[in-house]
Amino acid sequence: MTRKLRAAVLGATGTVGQRFIQLLEDHPWFELGAIAASGRSVGKPYHRACSWKVPEPQPEYVRDQVLSPCRPGLEADFVFSGLPSSIAGEVECDFARAGYPVVSNSGYHRMEEDVPLLVPEINSDHLDLISLQQERTRSSGFIVTNPNCTTIALVLALAPLHRAFGLERVSVVTMQALSGAGYPGVAGLDVADNVLPYIEGEEEKVETEPLKILGNYKDGKVERAEFAISAQCHRVSVQDGHLEAVSVSVRLLPSLDELVETLASFRSLPQELDLPSAPRRPVVCLEEPDRPQPRLDRNLEKGMATVVGRIRPCPVLDYKFDLLGHNTIRGAAGAAILNAELLRARGMLKGKE
Amino acid sequence: MTRKLRAAVLGATGTVGQRFIQLLEDHPWFELGAIAASGRSVGKPYHRACSWKVPEPQPEYVRDQVLSPCRPGLEADFVFSGLPSSIAGEVECDFARAGYPVVSNSGYHRMEEDVPLLVPEINSDHLDLISLQQERTRSSGFIVTNPNCTTIALVLALAPLHRAFGLERVSVVTMQALSGAGYPGVAGLDVADNVLPYIEGEEEKVETEPLKILGNYKDGKVERAEFAISAQCHRVSVQDGHLEAVSVSVRLLPSLDELVETLASFRSLPQELDLPSAPRRPVVCLEEPDRPQPRLDRNLEKGMATVVGRIRPCPVLDYKFDLLGHNTIRGAAGAAILNAELLRARGMLKGKE
Amino acid sequence: MTRKLRAAVLGATGTVGQRFIQLLEDHPWFELGAIAASGRSVGKPYHRACSWKVPEPQPEYVRDQVLSPCRPGLEADFVFSGLPSSIAGEVECDFARAGYPVVSNSGYHRMEEDVPLLVPEINSDHLDLISLQQERTRSSGFIVTNPNCTTIALVLALAPLHRAFGLERVSVVTMQALSGAGYPGVAGLDVADNVLPYIEGEEEKVETEPLKILGNYKDGKVERAEFAISAQCHRVSVQDGHLEAVSVSVRLLPSLDELVETLASFRSLPQELDLPSAPRRPVVCLEEPDRPQPRLDRNLEKGMATVVGRIRPCPVLDYKFDLLGHNTIRGAAGAAILNAELLRARGMLKGKE
Amino acid sequence: MTRKLRAAVLGATGTVGQRFIQLLEDHPWFELGAIAASGRSVGKPYHRACSWKVPEPQPEYVRDQVLSPCRPGLEADFVFSGLPSSIAGEVECDFARAGYPVVSNSGYHRMEEDVPLLVPEINSDHLDLISLQQERTRSSGFIVTNPNCTTIALVLALAPLHRAFGLERVSVVTMQALSGAGYPGVAGLDVADNVLPYIEGEEEKVETEPLKILGNYKDGKVERAEFAISAQCHRVSVQDGHLEAVSVSVRLLPSLDELVETLASFRSLPQELDLPSAPRRPVVCLEEPDRPQPRLDRNLEKGMATVVGRIRPCPVLDYKFDLLGHNTIRGAAGAAILNAELLRARGMLKGKE
Repeated sequence: MTRKLRAAVLGATGTVGQRFIQLLEDHPWFELGAIAASGRSVGKPYHRACSWKVPEPQPEYVRDQVLSPCRPGLEADFVFSGLPSSIAGEVECDFARAGYPVVSNSGYHRMEEDVPLLVPEINSDHLDLISLQQERTRSSGFIVTNPNCTTIALVLALAPLHRAFGLERVSVVTMQALSGAGYPGVAGLDVADNVLPYIEGEEEKVETEPLKILGNYKDGKVERAEFAISAQCHRVSVQDGHLEAVSVSVRLLPSLDELVETLASFRSLPQELDLPSAPRRPVVCLEEPDRPQPRLDRNLEKGMATVVGRIRPCPVLDYKFDLLGHNTIRGAAGAAILNAELLRARGMLKGKE
Repeated sequence: MTRKLRAAVLGATGTVGQRFIQLLEDHPWFELGAIAASGRSVGKPYHRACSWKVPEPQPEYVRDQVLSPCRPGLEADFVFSGLPSSIAGEVECDFARAGYPVVSNSGYHRMEEDVPLLVPEINSDHLDLISLQQERTRSSGFIVTNPNCTTIALVLALAPLHRAFGLERVSVVTMQALSGAGYPGVAGLDVADNVLPYIEGEEEKVETEPLKILGNYKDGKVERAEFAISAQCHRVSVQDGHLEAVSVSVRLLPSLDELVETLASFRSLPQELDLPSAPRRPVVCLEEPDRPQPRLDRNLEKGMATVVGRIRPCPVLDYKFDLLGHNTIRGAAGAAILNAELLRARGMLKGKE
Repeated sequence: MTRKLRAAVLGATGTVGQRFIQLLEDHPWFELGAIAASGRSVGKPYHRACSWKVPEPQPEYVRDQVLSPCRPGLEADFVFSGLPSSIAGEVECDFARAGYPVVSNSGYHRMEEDVPLLVPEINSDHLDLISLQQERTRSSGFIVTNPNCTTIALVLALAPLHRAFGLERVSVVTMQALSGAGYPGVAGLDVADNVLPYIEGEEEKVETEPLKILGNYKDGKVERAEFAISAQCHRVSVQDGHLEAVSVSVRLLPSLDELVETLASFRSLPQELDLPSAPRRPVVCLEEPDRPQPRLDRNLEKGMATVVGRIRPCPVLDYKFDLLGHNTIRGAAGAAILNAELLRARGMLKGKE
Repeated sequence: MTRKLRAAVLGATGTVGQRFIQLLEDHPWFELGAIAASGRSVGKPYHRACSWKVPEPQPEYVRDQVLSPCRPGLEADFVFSGLPSSIAGEVECDFARAGYPVVSNSGYHRMEEDVPLLVPEINSDHLDLISLQQERTRSSGFIVTNPNCTTIALVLALAPLHRAFGLERVSVVTMQALSGAGYPGVAGLDVADNVLPYIEGEEEKVETEPLKILGNYKDGKVERAEFAISAQCHRVSVQDGHLEAVSVSVRLLPSLDELVETLASFRSLPQELDLPSAPRRPVVCLEEPDRPQPRLDRNLEKGMATVVGRIRPCPVLDYKFDLLGHNTIRGAAGAAILNAELLRARGMLKGKE
């Protein structure tokens, strides 16, 4: 690599935007170009416009950087988008049409036919959609997305099982962290001494996104995987880390040991390419009977892995287990950064002259 | 009713014992006779031996009452047991052999063949086991138990579904309150900003007790109900109220409206007899999309009902929903008190001369 | 008493308004007349307009009652105001000018010269301000206020000390509950695993309101009490109940026993008049070394008392202790209801023809 | 420096011991020699004996290291003690008598006349006590202690104020984290939705230790500083980070700017010597009105600084502010490690042959 690529961050003052900025500090391949936010913040230095909520300290270099509007023309080789879905639809298209690669964490474009819903460990072949997308939009720019924070933790564990044994049914009950709702997000009154049994729009995402991610790319299309998913989503008083109680049935029934080994030994392209943000182990399996726990395990593999524990037979489906993912790292900004790293490794991100 | 029956409370200083004492204040049929606890506390006035943790104030009448040892000879017409399982086995047998009816919340005797695991709304016919038990032990005393706190909230909702549609499979993921673990129970360090994915021995209880409760009494035996249950139990930072995400499949598939109506209209013997602690509605159905919530709904029907919400089709089984039960009221002391009320109504509890 | 007076509740859908409605259920002197709220809610039935957050169930009688606008013309003998300060200023004046007695929990008019800042145990003589107020506004209506939630818990303990020993300096550090900030109030992300060392505007209120409450009424004016108060206010992850660490110095130094006795034996006008909402003991003193605690003690005396504990000498001032008050009962709606009860007992609230 | 010194950790499985092990990973001057614990754990590999509770992952190198008993004879150049006070008294003396330098976090020996209660930024001259201690015990070994976790966060801010303006009175109200109580420590039931107004023995430590730390060493004795301290200690549901609301009066009254500048510019010996664990800024001053907050600020300067905010005049004393310290880093293991670094820099820790 010669010089670092400059990344602009859209939605830089939000909770996902803050994670982008924190994770890009000292990144070996990327450096922060422009930062952009909505109208109120434009023209302000970052530390005045942003109420920093990430538990790691704010990088000093961004403190006095001035916020731009979310419009093409930013000094950047490509764009990370941490925009809310309600805004992302149009803005991300504007950037793609203006020639920027857009690496988005937003939900808006995820399920569109020619937009990759990319998890580098799982479906790097879906990147072939990009050329179709570029044809349609007649632009050198494009949009690549990563999944919802709950989906990605789940699908990292489902992928090796699906490839090895063929998933038939997946039931998942989630206990999701506060940071997943953005800021201010959930009211303190609603979560102290409480659990909320409902997160708007979340179950739909978890029940559909994995089928696209695990689908086969063929003749310019992604054929959805065919198995049933049921999601029941809850919000708990935890800062970071989505815990998910999962049960699965499969076509080819493995032994318990085979199942564990299949999860624990899972390695894929990002590990082979040694991408800077790739976890050494995409799925970490813990043996202790009371793990994974959000507080203790969310930072394993720097928050880029799915941590699995309590794997055991299920009297209703075949096997059940708990899994945990760091929802603002692998579940958001970290996922997008890993996507960008794969794009760069594939020659699909380049420095502008 | 002529005079109130005197109830002794075994394990009176523990968290379940405290609830017995709080709920027996001003009870129309029962009054507190003796209070008993383990060795260290014997001979002390209650307020010195007990670290009161129930959010309702301690009744004044018990403040200076002196604790007795947990041995027969107590001034009482019958006994409530809030003892831990490790002690309950022997002590409860001693009381039963000495002629006391023992109404126990403890887990020790629940699954024994001739001990009713009683839920008055569901299996009052199981009380016929008592005469067999009395024959075996050659005593006028006996033991009646109520289910585990997680089981009872679940089984109150399962019972009307099983009777109407025939359960085939039940999958339940729980988010359980701190008070379910007794005191000191779970360490603050373990639950603040965290969820624990493991509660020792809990899943086994939830996967077996409902099959006895919903079993048919025939020829002196309870034939276990035959359907599959899978439980995944978690501890969350909530004071009171177990939340459970449930999914079920049934033999006869009802419409969503039929299912809701079956739950909401469920009434049974305790309601017909108008027992003092019986909830008007054993199952309360809420329509709001974000309910039930532990903090807001655990005290509906004075904590004696199961509160159900988010009833909807399940892509993996047939229907799914969330339910909530107050684990120290209907899940423990309140369940035992309702059991005693049924026993009294049936003439199986009498004042001693 | 002949018939119940009809009270309208302004701001009925807010957290304070919800408490008014919950506390007025079965009130012996008052009944709910109209309920009023801001524009969006007008015309809707209560249960649709209101997101109920009080842990006690919503009274059924209010469920389908329709919300009116906050304008004079409501069917009511007097008005309770749970409006936010930003709106209360004008709206409460409108009602007072239209002839309604306004019993307000809002902060807007508290420090005005001819508006009583009333605590019935402390300064019932300040009610003489009302006739001056009525002269000024040339109306039979008037406004009476209660203090800020943090102030009232504090001043109930300060009052007997000030009368007996003469306060010189008061230092208070608060740990305040979430419900004090209304809804949605404080973000869950901000209070989980955290404490906030700042509550906007709060310290100013706590440092000034007690001086008016404890001031002497003389010649149509309240002369402010003269002692120094320092407040440092914090928000903690507690649902209800403000805990305050207090230290005081006094002119006449009592013994520790005298101080405790002075607090514990404090009784005043509401107790003499046996007002329905009056706590038997306005100040409850606990002896246990680890009390008061919000969860265990906030409901003592039905949430209408200040609970004091850990009274001991202070190496810097004279004595120090912790105190606790239920911020939405005695700290808000309950305080206003007790004020209304005193007004009725004094003949200052009457049924309209 | 030639080779790393080997440190043994006593009490290695406790919460303080865990922090020692985590902080010693990759330490430039020290490496882990032996690990020792109480009887039950002796002979077991670390990962089996220890329930790891530190949010950072357990270093892999310690996983299979076997625990020794807490008796002299350990392979180590010196000893870190994370023992509880009840055991530390005797065991630490044994090690000192056997010739080991003992760098202790335990409370047992802190207030002894010839034992330094060391804060390298404040009282490095107290190290002269060591030769007196060695004379008394006729050993080359010795004991050096660091303060209680609440004391050290406080005294780092008091020291520059005392030197510059002369403290007269200090009032402090604390809101302390769960990890300060060890494991299991405080029950979850006691802190969820609650604050505890009492921590056994804590206030005494906070009211006395600063007077020794800020005392003058003269003629072989530490003369206690002479000012009054009052402490009121509370436990809140926070994992790490003690928050303290402080008010002070001084002999020479500075302007607010002078006070802030005195705190913010404080540098001392560890900064001059550039000790590996020394914070660049021992006192960090934040300007935002709502800081410091435990979750956001406890990790500033890697948890080795006191973070101060909300500095403003106090109506009762002279100035007031909030401060925050990481109780298991600078408040425990990190403090002891910094003490050891100063000892090494001073030539008082040497490698054994």
